[in-house]
Amino acid sequence: MEHLGKHVWAIPEGFVPGSSTGPESMTSHETACILNTGDSDAHVEITLFFPDREPAGPFGITVPARRTRHQRFSELTADDVPPAAADYASVLVSDVPVVVQHTRLDSRQAANALLSTIAYGVR
Amino acid sequence: MEHLGKHVWAIPEGFVPGSSTGPESMTSHETACILNTGDSDAHVEITLFFPDREPAGPFGITVPARRTRHQRFSELTADDVPPAAADYASVLVSDVPVVVQHTRLDSRQAANALLSTIAYGVR
Amino acid sequence: MEHLGKHVWAIPEGFVPGSSTGPESMTSHETACILNTGDSDAHVEITLFFPDREPAGPFGITVPARRTRHQRFSELTADDVPPAAADYASVLVSDVPVVVQHTRLDSRQAANALLSTIAYGVR
Amino acid sequence: MEHLGKHVWAIPEGFVPGSSTGPESMTSHETACILNTGDSDAHVEITLFFPDREPAGPFGITVPARRTRHQRFSELTADDVPPAAADYASVLVSDVPVVVQHTRLDSRQAANALLSTIAYGVR
Repeated sequence: MEHLGKHVWAIPEGFVPGSSTGPESMTSHETACILNTGDSDAHVEITLFFPDREPAGPFGITVPARRTRHQRFSELTADDVPPAAADYASVLVSDVPVVVQHTRLDSRQAANALLSTIAYGVR
Repeated sequence: MEHLGKHVWAIPEGFVPGSSTGPESMTSHETACILNTGDSDAHVEITLFFPDREPAGPFGITVPARRTRHQRFSELTADDVPPAAADYASVLVSDVPVVVQHTRLDSRQAANALLSTIAYGVR
Repeated sequence: MEHLGKHVWAIPEGFVPGSSTGPESMTSHETACILNTGDSDAHVEITLFFPDREPAGPFGITVPARRTRHQRFSELTADDVPPAAADYASVLVSDVPVVVQHTRLDSRQAANALLSTIAYGVR
Repeated sequence: MEHLGKHVWAIPEGFVPGSSTGPESMTSHETACILNTGDSDAHVEITLFFPDREPAGPFGITVPARRTRHQRFSELTADDVPPAAADYASVLVSDVPVVVQHTRLDSRQAANALLSTIAYGVR
């Protein structure tokens, strides 16, 4: 299949919940789900924005040809970037068109809550 | 009414929860809601993408003229495709314009959680 | 302010939960939130689509100039249209540009669940 | 990075839940998450729309260059605007392009519920 989507995507909302309830599979997390439908690997650079300091990154990841990668923001780096329980935002820049969807699972209280939206495709 | 929407839609996020809580009507599920407003049947081919293997499909379904079909991904095939509790993504290609919305009900913990977004309309 | 948005909007997902938990303010419901930013009233016609029968409507509502109306689908008609606990979809056609967002509150199990997305703006 | 996004955004759905369950970090709230990727501060004017009276505002906020601001609607003014537990909608106008995402955390019942969507980018 050809490459579908856009090269640049933005996600203004970001917040990795600082705690969780329930089994490990319910750990609170926030994800950028990236779909690469084409025959070339996608090299994606993710920059993080904060309310009160300069942006961090870019952090590079690869989404292989004809694959999807559901990238947890908390696993982008070995350091605590983005910090838990703090506001942030993100921009993703890919060298081939991809499609990006933003999802959070929040299990801080008993029972989990979910949000999701297609990210904003810039160009 | 004329056909509204686009021919190609992408949903990067996909995850059929592997368990449920509550009565059968609350069974965890993930759905592509397809609306065909026009006077011709829509023949839709759904391809599934995974993190670590080649795509599966396409799987063909029909959305009759002037109807909506809320297609559960777990009922696309007789086999376990997509597998429960594993990441995937999807692309839908229709021979007439349709509109697609992605919804998940997750009842793994007590009380259910919901997410929904209009899918990404490619063209 | 001028009229912002589009004339035609589609919402493929529709499902009014058939039961509720908690106080009356938590009654399960599904809403088309319509924003009319301009100086003329918006006359909006809503058509409902189903999986297995012909569309119903259109049902006409008015969103006054410079107002928002959060229209519950269960209050569109005196009859049981759309029926509770059944799949449907909707198309909204307005004589002036408006913006439409789709929201559901589902309190069938203890604690409520929410979903929301900007509807698909056709033209 | 250059300024990404649009100058005018609309959010038809608005409702600040009137109560909360759980610790203070779970207080029900509704947020416009604004991302300013560029090198100039963004001056954003937010107008609120209601079902039954004239719009309020605009209320001005600043999103500094290369920053994100997750603005709670309940903290826009010192007065009770928007009122808790009442329907409203909003339009954001920025002097430079930004990206806007709408999020609500509702903890009126035990356990929290979440919704989120990229706002409608007008131009």
